[in-house]
Amino acid sequence: MKHYRKALYFNTKTRRAFINITDAVEEAIVESKIQEGLVLINAMHITASVFINDHEHGLHADFEEFLERMAPEKPHDQYKHNTGTLEDNGDAHIKREILGREVVVAISDGQLDFGPWEQIFYGEFDGMRKKRVLIKIIGM
Amino acid sequence: MKHYRKALYFNTKTRRAFINITDAVEEAIVESKIQEGLVLINAMHITASVFINDHEHGLHADFEEFLERMAPEKPHDQYKHNTGTLEDNGDAHIKREILGREVVVAISDGQLDFGPWEQIFYGEFDGMRKKRVLIKIIGM
Amino acid sequence: MKHYRKALYFNTKTRRAFINITDAVEEAIVESKIQEGLVLINAMHITASVFINDHEHGLHADFEEFLERMAPEKPHDQYKHNTGTLEDNGDAHIKREILGREVVVAISDGQLDFGPWEQIFYGEFDGMRKKRVLIKIIGM
Repeated sequence: MKHYRKALYFNTKTRRAFINITDAVEEAIVESKIQEGLVLINAMHITASVFINDHEHGLHADFEEFLERMAPEKPHDQYKHNTGTLEDNGDAHIKREILGREVVVAISDGQLDFGPWEQIFYGEFDGMRKKRVLIKIIGM
Repeated sequence: MKHYRKALYFNTKTRRAFINITDAVEEAIVESKIQEGLVLINAMHITASVFINDHEHGLHADFEEFLERMAPEKPHDQYKHNTGTLEDNGDAHIKREILGREVVVAISDGQLDFGPWEQIFYGEFDGMRKKRVLIKIIGM
Repeated sequence: MKHYRKALYFNTKTRRAFINITDAVEEAIVESKIQEGLVLINAMHITASVFINDHEHGLHADFEEFLERMAPEKPHDQYKHNTGTLEDNGDAHIKREILGREVVVAISDGQLDFGPWEQIFYGEFDGMRKKRVLIKIIGM
């Protein structure tokens, strides 16, 4: 069994953003020299997501609208997370739970074993500061 | 370490459907000859889910009602995914994010290590065409 | 390749509860003697979740409020799961789907490979009875 670890760093210019990280994950798989296995890709912060969907800007605008409808950013004091700690990111913790913390993807023949439109995204919900994504690969 | 890969194919008669795939996953585990490990089961399309819950039709009707409340299919032009690409499946991309792309299940003693009611389902949100689910198993 | 399995048991005093299980998972990793690998932690019941977020009580109150808004417990007969089976936990099945069944976490250098605030929680949505969480570790 082989294993490989790599961290990706982000510091988005906007509070919320979706960033395509598929190429960075493929690069890590090449570096790992693992041909068959699983790759875990997870946000290391609790106000961000990693998810798989389509690289289409209209769709990303739909995700933004949907998540704001589910857990609006403002007013901040609608969240007890704000009242107790003076944090202003109660919405970001909930948005991350909806889209999820992580994905696990199969590696077959040394590549992401993907369907035709699958792309991996980092979803930032409380950005404008340095944050990390972990890539962990195990296999042979 | 051993590994095994198998794809399942679906072409549902309705736009949305829930299909129990537990037996197909168990069959793949037997074929893999893996006794201890992890099995990843994921939709290979971005308008479908794999999830674990109860095999009960009333509950599936509740899931359908809940997902339609969260992201209604119509009108199609409420989604920018539609406006930009003339796609009509903006709702399906969001529904899949709520239920999730994948599950990872433990294999112990050559079997799915499941609680009493756990069953694996394929959730189709934009069907009536050929789609795939990937089963990837690693272990020993 | 090594593997390790452990179950955790819960019997919450309230219908809904969030319980921090990070220490129990770390203990299992030590017992496993696995230095590099993946740990799967999943609810074995279909009305409960395992998820990763912040250990902050205001935030947990926000999660409770959010999940009740998405899928209210009462009236029970709004759910077909109830009508068909006389179950009263239709809401709990939906809440579990929103927060998710499982997490997969990297193990590096014999420890949970975590960001600064990541903590693992058991989310109970239909408690006051004995339920289980499975920990399955594979690696080397």
